[in-house]
Amino acid sequence: MKIIASFTLVPIDGGLSLSPYIAACHEILERSGLSCEYHSNGTNIEGEWDEVFEVIKTCQMAVHDLGAKRIHTVIQLGTRTDREQDMAEKLVSVQEKRQKNI
Amino acid sequence: MKIIASFTLVPIDGGLSLSPYIAACHEILERSGLSCEYHSNGTNIEGEWDEVFEVIKTCQMAVHDLGAKRIHTVIQLGTRTDREQDMAEKLVSVQEKRQKNI
Amino acid sequence: MKIIASFTLVPIDGGLSLSPYIAACHEILERSGLSCEYHSNGTNIEGEWDEVFEVIKTCQMAVHDLGAKRIHTVIQLGTRTDREQDMAEKLVSVQEKRQKNI
Amino acid sequence: MKIIASFTLVPIDGGLSLSPYIAACHEILERSGLSCEYHSNGTNIEGEWDEVFEVIKTCQMAVHDLGAKRIHTVIQLGTRTDREQDMAEKLVSVQEKRQKNI
Repeated sequence: MKIIASFTLVPIDGGLSLSPYIAACHEILERSGLSCEYHSNGTNIEGEWDEVFEVIKTCQMAVHDLGAKRIHTVIQLGTRTDREQDMAEKLVSVQEKRQKNI
Repeated sequence: MKIIASFTLVPIDGGLSLSPYIAACHEILERSGLSCEYHSNGTNIEGEWDEVFEVIKTCQMAVHDLGAKRIHTVIQLGTRTDREQDMAEKLVSVQEKRQKNI
Repeated sequence: MKIIASFTLVPIDGGLSLSPYIAACHEILERSGLSCEYHSNGTNIEGEWDEVFEVIKTCQMAVHDLGAKRIHTVIQLGTRTDREQDMAEKLVSVQEKRQKNI
Repeated sequence: MKIIASFTLVPIDGGLSLSPYIAACHEILERSGLSCEYHSNGTNIEGEWDEVFEVIKTCQMAVHDLGAKRIHTVIQLGTRTDREQDMAEKLVSVQEKRQKNI
């Protein structure tokens, strides 16, 4: 089952600056070879269910290893059985609807 | 790694009533043997990382099997390395803080 | 517009124990007079859109006042225009579906 | 209180294609004049607490007006009192951490 997911890791008690944790996660994501989209409130990632959750788990453990003793993680994901869809196509589809309205 | 998670499955295009889907998930959750807490916006569940995500995946596939062609799923989870904590203890801890304030 | 919402405030850099913050929020919620359901991953609340978000904003500011310099907040909410529904009814509806399956 | 928020509207029972709803929301967002970042799992928006939630409410009502009888909405937001931060700066901060590691 292919999924398009978005996830946000919130390290608690690891300091006010979260960017060192996010930088470490970006490296893990790039090594995974999965398609990713970084945005200012989290990361989008697409792939098979098991491989996506394996990567998220690796990030979670890396953030603990960097010193965060407690983490709150938010994951949103979409699955569909009617057809395949990737992240790029979702954005294009919205753009097409907007152009038709002009 | 033990986690306390909350998850909400939102079937898109499967009708306005979501309770048949939720009822099917509750049966899966009870068969899993994991501790669960049902509330009006989702289900809380605790267990090892892999077993919790395996149960969520089983629910996701069951909801597709019941007719939902597209599902949006929201998962929140907490992990901590300083000590073990379960769901019941989290609620008791808040109650204790409140009683001290009285 | 009436909503059923769930919200979770995650104080960053305010210490590992979150229960003092949650206890303060519970007091605000009770003073609000809105129906609430406390669970181990957040709080459910129902009411008119504006009053629910006013209460969440009050909680957010109270948690900052207690010393958290940074907060990550997750809100999930449902609205429906086909009919009114409250939190208690959502849980009863699931129970009924389950009993029919026995 | 300035916030950086991410929100995702999930129309239930409004058809499998969500892009017409999202296109309508994008128009509302652009008319609002607030800084927005569109990604494949939602929209990020920054502004004062009240104006951000006013825009989200307008989107929610527009999606109902387009035919969705039920909507599940997920909002994540961050506030901080130690200093101001905008969306662009969050991404730059992560990039800087990564370059230092090379």
